[in-house]
Formats: sequence, structure tokens, C-alpha cells
Amino acid sequence: MTGRRQVHLNVNILNAGVFGGSWRFPGTDPAASFGLDHYVRIARRAEEATFDAIFLADGPAIREDIRYRPFNSLEPSVILAALAAATEHVGLIATLSSSYNDPYDVARRFASLDLLSGGRTGWNVVTTAGADAARNFGFDAEPAHGARYERAAEFVEVVRALWNSWEPDALIGDKATHRFADYARIHAVDHHGPHFDVAGPLNVPRSPQGEPVVVQAGASKDGRALAARVGEVIFTAAQTADEAGEYYRDVKARAVGYGRRAEDVLILPGLSTVLGSTEAEAAQRRELLAELVPPEYALDRLATQLGVDRDDLTLDGPLPWHLLADPDEAGGSQTFYKIALGLARRENLTVRQLLRRLGGGAGHRIVTGTPEQVADAIIDWVEAGIADGFNLMPDVLPGGFDDFVDGVVPILRRRGVFRTEYEATTLRGHLGLPVPTYRGTIAEGVA
Amino acid sequence: MTGRRQVHLNVNILNAGVFGGSWRFPGTDPAASFGLDHYVRIARRAEEATFDAIFLADGPAIREDIRYRPFNSLEPSVILAALAAATEHVGLIATLSSSYNDPYDVARRFASLDLLSGGRTGWNVVTTAGADAARNFGFDAEPAHGARYERAAEFVEVVRALWNSWEPDALIGDKATHRFADYARIHAVDHHGPHFDVAGPLNVPRSPQGEPVVVQAGASKDGRALAARVGEVIFTAAQTADEAGEYYRDVKARAVGYGRRAEDVLILPGLSTVLGSTEAEAAQRRELLAELVPPEYALDRLATQLGVDRDDLTLDGPLPWHLLADPDEAGGSQTFYKIALGLARRENLTVRQLLRRLGGGAGHRIVTGTPEQVADAIIDWVEAGIADGFNLMPDVLPGGFDDFVDGVVPILRRRGVFRTEYEATTLRGHLGLPVPTYRGTIAEGVA
Repeated sequence: MTGRRQVHLNVNILNAGVFGGSWRFPGTDPAASFGLDHYVRIARRAEEATFDAIFLADGPAIREDIRYRPFNSLEPSVILAALAAATEHVGLIATLSSSYNDPYDVARRFASLDLLSGGRTGWNVVTTAGADAARNFGFDAEPAHGARYERAAEFVEVVRALWNSWEPDALIGDKATHRFADYARIHAVDHHGPHFDVAGPLNVPRSPQGEPVVVQAGASKDGRALAARVGEVIFTAAQTADEAGEYYRDVKARAVGYGRRAEDVLILPGLSTVLGSTEAEAAQRRELLAELVPPEYALDRLATQLGVDRDDLTLDGPLPWHLLADPDEAGGSQTFYKIALGLARRENLTVRQLLRRLGGGAGHRIVTGTPEQVADAIIDWVEAGIADGFNLMPDVLPGGFDDFVDGVVPILRRRGVFRTEYEATTLRGHLGLPVPTYRGTIAEGVA
Repeated sequence: MTGRRQVHLNVNILNAGVFGGSWRFPGTDPAASFGLDHYVRIARRAEEATFDAIFLADGPAIREDIRYRPFNSLEPSVILAALAAATEHVGLIATLSSSYNDPYDVARRFASLDLLSGGRTGWNVVTTAGADAARNFGFDAEPAHGARYERAAEFVEVVRALWNSWEPDALIGDKATHRFADYARIHAVDHHGPHFDVAGPLNVPRSPQGEPVVVQAGASKDGRALAARVGEVIFTAAQTADEAGEYYRDVKARAVGYGRRAEDVLILPGLSTVLGSTEAEAAQRRELLAELVPPEYALDRLATQLGVDRDDLTLDGPLPWHLLADPDEAGGSQTFYKIALGLARRENLTVRQLLRRLGGGAGHRIVTGTPEQVADAIIDWVEAGIADGFNLMPDVLPGGFDDFVDGVVPILRRRGVFRTEYEATTLRGHLGLPVPTYRGTIAEGVA
């Protein structure tokens, strides 16, 4: 191992791939993501490639998008548990909403997953934009952006207190003295806050990581604050090095402002890859992927995400700037919103050109090229100190990920920036994050 | 296969075994139930023995009991998912509370599990007694018994409506026409009831079983009504053939009263087994298990479950009958309450004798004997038409279950009352339950 900055890599198992046309790509099984094999196959390849983790996005609602493409469907904590049984080393990160779950249940499910997986789990905290999800959980409309983030901050606080409700040696299991657990070392949480009243203790002993890794993806002001305050791994979307650098410096500085060490917060931008053995082959593949995006889909989705009517968008005209809210005021997912507006403004794109550039994707950086070029794109940002690695979103699953594992990973390894075998047994170990020491509970005034 | 009535068997993976002293039994690993291997090992043995299903009990809270014995700890839906990946045939049933979950999330997790497992899941609906659980979810005290059951009935209704929100052929995935899902065949639920407002549709396609199997264990009046109305498999606790027969006839009659067929409701009493190669060996084993119950544990637990103070119990005196509520009025788990009172009254037991008889167990029928005797005990009740099989609660896990698989299963097979190989691929298939046809959603007035 050289002294070069190491790259951290997660792979986002996003159904058939990140683009609107991925599921129509030759050889793809459109329904694969509704069965176990899809996830097991990709997780095992990720493990073979010594990835830090697999990642599962989520949202507890259906969108009309599904007319034209696959979507987040199966509940991610159960997929994660199945993968805990089907893999041995790779980290396992899943998204659960802080707006539509209870902290006791989330704390319990992740502590359980951490025990079942031997310390390999991470929880991606999201606040869940959109009225569709709200209406599945008894609300009339989406809770306000600020309120969602306040609830999220309290939610994480309660979850961590529950994870700390058992001292490390509270489980005794001594047959001779017939003491099973030391109740004096298991503590109530007694949390009473604006959003939650939770007594505790958790009914799960302290897990191998002490606390599963907390992942966040805040883009708005509130989001960045939450990410910097509680996130240990932070996903972000950045199209350019400038955007990445600004986010990286800002969030690390905010984290330090919260009394944390900058190196205890890893920032991983999303990276969509389109690989070919030559530049021309990669460009052709990208062209095909753009053609495969169902035409009804792209325009509808852009209109929804910009919060305008479809009729407000003219394919060969500019974006309807006068209708667009300030990103920080927009209610929905601000990551996509900012990215799309930034791209369109910077490159003066028409709606059609913008759709082409987004490719029906999630608004993340897309690198199209040979394995060498993709490896360069990864290493450049990490060596420039504007990313600690990437959350990989292959163009097509599983094929595009296979191409990455077979083509890009060996280059990263040869260049001394990516591990050749696992040196740790836990997700914290893979990420180089510290294992939290027992820190008592809220009730004791420690956390 | 002869024409004899077939026995259905589930195994309850109850940490180290059903008794208070199971974890102290020679060879037992007290902490085994906090790791994956324990569940995988037992589930694979259950599969080898062609069991209908494994079963996981649950309660989202800790009790002081844990000072003296293991407890339900890891969240059961994640254990189930791990077992979906680790097994191929055996059914997978887990308990989730209708009092402390959201129907959208429960519908989604079980639909996901059903897809991941190829149609092998069942949901045991419980209303969760006890203030400890309530206080982990924002309540000051246990919701009233009747209110819990009202909520449970509405909860199941919403979950089933969500499972029916996708027509069977709504998922298209046609690359040529770029239609992924037929939105016209995916229906809102638009449920508005006393406890829940849920828009739907579910964001998971119809699962292999159409609807995962609904399991219930009602013992009180409200509980029997719920079981008869929604339960497809019903767990019950019966110490005697009379108790079993009364429950069996009553619940099947109630089910018919709800317009259901009697054969679409399977009633499986709990059965704790203590096996030995001779009667004397089995009796010795039972004696040892009774001795291993931590003495502080048994008295404390009985007091809690009877709703009296520990000082109200005199070891060599009768139960304090004047302090005991009518079982139907008691707030907590009525199964145990009724069983304990029935035993004590019928056999005029002192507190000490009652504790010995219960063995620190769950109040279920205990059969102690040779494999032949245990097989007889099983077949007798099934042939008498007072049980459709049993929910097995081995005395010690995994050892006591190994003894059952090796000793009792071959006898049941030789006698032609238990399958020698799986003839179906789904839990419904194993149980002989019908696959529900698509029945629309509440909004359409069909369900």
C-alpha cells in the first residue's frame, strides 16, 4: 500500500440501473429487482471487488413514473437482511425514512442487522420528500421541509441513545450464577422531545459496531446542517469539481463546527458510469441509453421535479426560469433540483438538451469512457481533496457494474488507491471510521 | 400418502428454548440467539424435516426477565429476510405488532419478504400487551385491550387492501413498447378509518402468494373474534384435549359465521417437547430443566403475569384467588393467564407446584416422553379433530429440536401423517390454504 489517498466505493443497487432507459438495455431483465437473486449477485460482486458497501435508496410510495421505468419497491431493510446472510464482508447500507418510522423500531432493526451481519450495517437517514409518501402514513400533505429536518435530528438522537442503552458487557449469560443480563448496565433512555417520547432501553444488546454507521445526503441548508451534525458518510450530487469542492469544504467545516473531526465525515458524491473498451464504444453506449429513455417519461419527470406543469416546458426552449423557486425554498428533493438548474444555467441548455444530459438519471455526475478514464475521474477528485470516494450508480445492472468491477477496479488497485483485500471485518473498519465508545444515554446526560 | 389427517408443524425459534432454564442446559450457548447462525441452523433442519414453517415470536420492549433468561430481541422481519436467503422451501412466519407499526410499512415488508422468498411468508398479527412496549412508542400506558383489537382488525384490513392494490398482471416490463407498469391496473386504497388514513397503492407488486398468510393467536373474546375473522393459521395454548377441543370448535364456528370455510382456518396449539430415548430419560431431562430455572425468575414472572405483587404469592400456599381478575377482564396476555389459572384450579396446585408444572415455559402443553409417545400425542389430537397440527416449542434449542427431527419426524412419516418431501413451493401450498384471487381494493368496494 502506498501513501496515496485511498478511495472509498459503495455501489447503489438501483433496480435496473440509474438511467430511465437502463431497464430497456439489451440483456437486462426488467423485473430483476423484484427478486432476491439480483441483489445477491451484485452484492457478491461488490464483495469480490472489495467495495466498502452496497447501498439501497428508498421511498415509501409509488410514483406515476412506474409507467415507464422500475422504481424503489422492496423494503430495503429486508433486502439488507437477506444480503447479510448471502455475503460475508461487504458493508450493507439501507435507507429508512425518519419521517415515516418510529425511532425505537429503526434502532432495533439496525441493531439487529448489525448483529446478524457481524457489524456491517449503515443507516441512510432520509426525510422523504413528497406528498405521496405522506398520504400513506396518515398525513394530508408533505410535512414542511424544516419540520422534517427537525424531526430527523431528534430521530437520530433517539436512535443513538437507544444504541447506547446497553453497556458493552451487559450481556452475561453465566450458567453457573444463572445471571443472563446485568440489568444495572442496561439503561432507560427516557427521551421526551418535541417529536418523540421513548422510554427504552432497546431490547437488543450493543451491536458489533457499537452504533451502525449513520449516512446522510443533505443538500439544502437544513440538509447540510443535519449531514454535518450526524452523518458519518455523506452522499452528495456534484456535476463539477467546483460544486464538489464547495460542498466538501462546507460540510467538513460545519462538522468541525459541531465539534467533530473532519476525517470522521466521509463525503462520497454519486457517480454514474458508462463504460466502453474504447471512448467511441462508451459514447455509443451512452447514446443508446439516451435513446432508450421512454420519451413520455423524461419530460413528465422533469416537470414534476421542477414543480411546474408539463405544458410549461418547451422542448427546444430554455427552462421556464421565471417559474422556478429558489433551490433553498423548493419543497421536494433539492439535490436533483439544484443539479438540473446548475447544469442548464452553466451550459445554457434547452429542455431537450438538459434531458439528454440527465439521461433520465438521478442528476449525478456521469462519466463516460474507458476504464482508464473512469479510474482517472475517480482518482482526480479524491486526490484533489474534494471527495473521499464515490457512491457508484452503474448505468445498467448488473452488466454495467460487472464492467466496472472487471475494468476499473484492477486499475484502481494497480495505482495503489483501492484495497486488494478486506483488512477489516466491519463497515466502520472498511471506511476507517472510529468505533464509538459507550457513551451512556440521554437520561444520564452523556449523549 | 394414506387418507389419514395430515399434521402441520411449525417450529418456534424461541431463543435457547421455551423454558426458563433452557439456556442453562448443558451444551447450550446462552448467547446463540443474538447471531445469525442459530436461526439458519434451525431453519435448515426444519426444512430438512419438511416442516411447514419456522415461527418467530416478538415484543418490542425489554422486561426485567432478562436478568434471568434470554428474550425476544432481534427484530423478527430482518431475521426472516436472512432466512429467506438461507433456505429454499420452508415457510417463514414472523410476528409484527399492529399496535406499534404502520400498516403501509407492514404490508410492504411482508410483500417484499414474499417476493424475496418466493412466496413463503406469513405475518403473525399481535396486539402486544404491556406498558413497556407502549412507552417505547410515545404512549403513557398500554392501550386498552378492546382498543388494541379494534385497531388490529382495521390494520389487517388496510394491509390486505394494500396487498390487493396491484392486479396480478400490472407489471409489464415490455422493452419494445417501453411500458413498465400498467398504471390502470394499480389502484389507490384510499382507506379512511378510525385508526388509519392510507392512500396507497403499495409500491410493491402483487407477491407470489397474493397475500402472505395471516396468523393470529387470540385467546380472549376479542382475540377469538379477530382470529376467526382474519386468521388463516391460529396459534393457541391448550393444556388438555378438552380445552383444545373447545377452542377448536368455537373458533372454526366463528370463522364460518364470518362467511369463511372451516378448512381455511388451521388451528395449531403450542407444544413443548421434552424427549428421551426412554421414559425415564425424558423424565430426568424434564427434572433437570425444572432445576435449571433461575429461582428468582419463576416467582417474579408469575407475579407479573398474574398482575399481583410478589409478596402476594406464598410458595406452599394456593394462588391468591381473591386478587385475580376474571381472565376476560385481565389486561395483559390472556393466553398465559388462562392456562395458569386453569392448571392451578384443575389440579389444586400450590404456587410451587404450579411453577414446576409451567417450568418457566410459555404455558403451553408439555409432552415428556419417548419419540413414540410424542408422536402419539401429536397424532391423537389431530385425529380427534381438535388440532390441525402444532406449533412446536422445543425444550432446548437447537438440541431439543434436533431430537424431534431425528426421533419424532420419521415416526410421523411412517404413520403416513406427515409429508416426506415438499409438494408445494409456497407456505400456502404447505398449509393447504387457498391462494387468494385478486379482489380489488377497499376503494372499489370489493374487499
